[in-house]
Amino acid sequence: MAIRIDRYPGTGVKRGKLYFGGADVTKLAKEYGTPLYVIDETTLRNRCREYRTAFEQRYDNVTVLLACKALTTIAVSGIVSDEGFGLDVASTGEMYGGIKAGADTSMMFLHGSYKKEEELAQALKWGIGTVVVDSLLEAKTLDRVARGMKTKARVIIRVTPGVEAHTHEMIQTGKLDTKFGVPIEGGAASEIVGAVSKMKGLDFTGLHYHIGSQILDVEPFRVSVRRVAGLIAEVVEKYGVEIRDLDVGGGYPVRYTSKQALPAPDKFAAAICGTLKKEMKAAGLPLPHLYLEPGRSVVGPAGITLYTVGPVKEIPGVRTYVSVDGGLSDNPRPALYDAEYEAVIAGRADTKRGLKKYRVSGRHCETDTLIKEIALADPKPGDIMAVFSTGAYNYSMAGNYNKFPRPAVVLVNNGKSDIIVERETIEDLYAKDVMPKRLVKKV
Amino acid sequence: MAIRIDRYPGTGVKRGKLYFGGADVTKLAKEYGTPLYVIDETTLRNRCREYRTAFEQRYDNVTVLLACKALTTIAVSGIVSDEGFGLDVASTGEMYGGIKAGADTSMMFLHGSYKKEEELAQALKWGIGTVVVDSLLEAKTLDRVARGMKTKARVIIRVTPGVEAHTHEMIQTGKLDTKFGVPIEGGAASEIVGAVSKMKGLDFTGLHYHIGSQILDVEPFRVSVRRVAGLIAEVVEKYGVEIRDLDVGGGYPVRYTSKQALPAPDKFAAAICGTLKKEMKAAGLPLPHLYLEPGRSVVGPAGITLYTVGPVKEIPGVRTYVSVDGGLSDNPRPALYDAEYEAVIAGRADTKRGLKKYRVSGRHCETDTLIKEIALADPKPGDIMAVFSTGAYNYSMAGNYNKFPRPAVVLVNNGKSDIIVERETIEDLYAKDVMPKRLVKKV
Repeated sequence: MAIRIDRYPGTGVKRGKLYFGGADVTKLAKEYGTPLYVIDETTLRNRCREYRTAFEQRYDNVTVLLACKALTTIAVSGIVSDEGFGLDVASTGEMYGGIKAGADTSMMFLHGSYKKEEELAQALKWGIGTVVVDSLLEAKTLDRVARGMKTKARVIIRVTPGVEAHTHEMIQTGKLDTKFGVPIEGGAASEIVGAVSKMKGLDFTGLHYHIGSQILDVEPFRVSVRRVAGLIAEVVEKYGVEIRDLDVGGGYPVRYTSKQALPAPDKFAAAICGTLKKEMKAAGLPLPHLYLEPGRSVVGPAGITLYTVGPVKEIPGVRTYVSVDGGLSDNPRPALYDAEYEAVIAGRADTKRGLKKYRVSGRHCETDTLIKEIALADPKPGDIMAVFSTGAYNYSMAGNYNKFPRPAVVLVNNGKSDIIVERETIEDLYAKDVMPKRLVKKV
Repeated sequence: MAIRIDRYPGTGVKRGKLYFGGADVTKLAKEYGTPLYVIDETTLRNRCREYRTAFEQRYDNVTVLLACKALTTIAVSGIVSDEGFGLDVASTGEMYGGIKAGADTSMMFLHGSYKKEEELAQALKWGIGTVVVDSLLEAKTLDRVARGMKTKARVIIRVTPGVEAHTHEMIQTGKLDTKFGVPIEGGAASEIVGAVSKMKGLDFTGLHYHIGSQILDVEPFRVSVRRVAGLIAEVVEKYGVEIRDLDVGGGYPVRYTSKQALPAPDKFAAAICGTLKKEMKAAGLPLPHLYLEPGRSVVGPAGITLYTVGPVKEIPGVRTYVSVDGGLSDNPRPALYDAEYEAVIAGRADTKRGLKKYRVSGRHCETDTLIKEIALADPKPGDIMAVFSTGAYNYSMAGNYNKFPRPAVVLVNNGKSDIIVERETIEDLYAKDVMPKRLVKKV
């Protein structure tokens, strides 16, 4: 019943206590309070290097970008930039975070299905390297903005190859039912390439696509490369354009439960690079610069969350609930996606016998189930619980439901720790509140 | 296909334009920007009065509390306090908001399945009227804290009557599978009353229960009153305690779609007050002070959200997507609960012919469906879209996913408008970020 802690990178157990990034997490909880997000710098850098190495070994011109939606803090953006990553950004806020981190704006790609005119203008002012155009409307707006600024915006076009993959499931369809991008099937993608490549304010350099999340199989990556290679051959022939850039997006998985088997980055690199080289060779075309955008697979395993255990409530014949001092507002993924997580009691991390099953509940005023069922070593009020693989889509999706302040984020590195995001205070939660004068009189 | 705008309180249509709280919402969008939460003070006050009147007409001693988790802003807490409401608070943050609003702390009830010792101490310092004790562990902690402060904490105990109701479904079970409270079935609730009523630091005054959310039928309210009345009779007999307070919680519904039929507050008041009087009379017991805690049913209809329409994307043979400049981060309910909402194009609110069906998508970098299907009057980029009944669990559950700043909240009142929560800035999103010194060197 015990989980395989050793399969979570950055972890260790000494005298029964859980360590992460070389730090005793029980001590971290005491020093910084709970709930607490902890990011291990070594794991983060290792994951960056694994992706770079896997692809660079197989392909000459490749750039890896971090999908910032999974986790943006200034320190994290700084670290991944230091590792040679670019940034996949999807808002003015994500661009700004990268800039504050000192990241190279020319290595940022601005994504999004609905970018406002002022955001496009801001991106050009900040020198954002590439805008990933999602529609003809956006291309026209950007063209106008760029010409008005007497510049050219480097753009790639988001196309939908009709492949959608999540975990083991792959859907192949022509008319892909998504708000994003322009479908290849039916000719819309080819048409927009023709239109965009003629716009004076735009420097059209290639294509982007993204086929899903947490994909556990390499086949969808192969199929989508083939489909997009077909589009490349078509537009080169039809419009005489050059496809210099190909951004194959993300979808690479993270281990959420310790017994799960995952393909290594190597497998994805081999599938993508191998198929692309083969297809381009067959079409007699030069290889484009390859971009990829892992998010959760890089930052996910680099994070854990620490909670303090509260009341333990046994309902005889039903189950036993163990409460923690966080939940829905710091990790909405179980409620949003039925996401699974694993946990241990940090002070008894090596206990393998006598574990019992619990439901882990958050402390918000609703059901707030964090983990449906997990075997734990006799959790007691005051114990520290560590939840694994929370680096992605936890801090980035956090809110203040029930007016709980968002947790601090601590960076650990070979046993040392630094705050990289301070804990919110109660006062912060009302910093933007205003009481209109006419109401002050009344109440 | 057109929705019944007139069934959403506070709304009106003049020369084709949507008004809310007497204000032209298109003008509000222009003045304050989008996305924008708008709260109508008149609707909010009317809803407060409907609940007070419905219950006060039928019962001598009754207090209505707003479930703050549905919406807490200082101005809203101020308005409902002005209407004679108390506050159901579930964290230090919610207590603090009420205090900033000038609300009477003696009319606050502190809820929660996991209250920390320091929170209980804070509640006593602030003079919070009643603590709703969730477990024996909590009762012991509070008793110790209160005695240490040489005071007595007024407490009621949360019990689980074995009735759970959501929309039309009612589950009756003895062993209720929930993290909250103490079950009546099996005798645990009776036992804890015995224990708590003897604690020197606690002034035990009664019971609380809560049976669900968005309940469309009065029967679950009747059944739960009967079950709890049985417990009351038992503990009065067994321990000689007096049940002075009975808090029957929330669960009252809000109209999310305009064709939905809802029981009025009157129906719930008749069911609850009628059953309670009958049961207490039969048991020969005095009537307790009655408390109820509506949340969404009071603040939900008082709110709408305004968005600016972006790209409209038709996928032939599939559907047409219309994008808006908000979504998951300002209204996570469709993603969390498959919640349904209705919308109109604010500038063409009375158009009834030629409407077509659209899927409304948010702008976050994932599926982000706000409304699965809604008939709209030819939405075009730049149009303002109004989504109804967003007063509850929208602002309170909002976050900064994709680093989008949270929208402003504007209070409208007979055509006038005041900011009650300012829009976050991009800088605000990084106000707590810290770059450790050793990283500044590296990057």
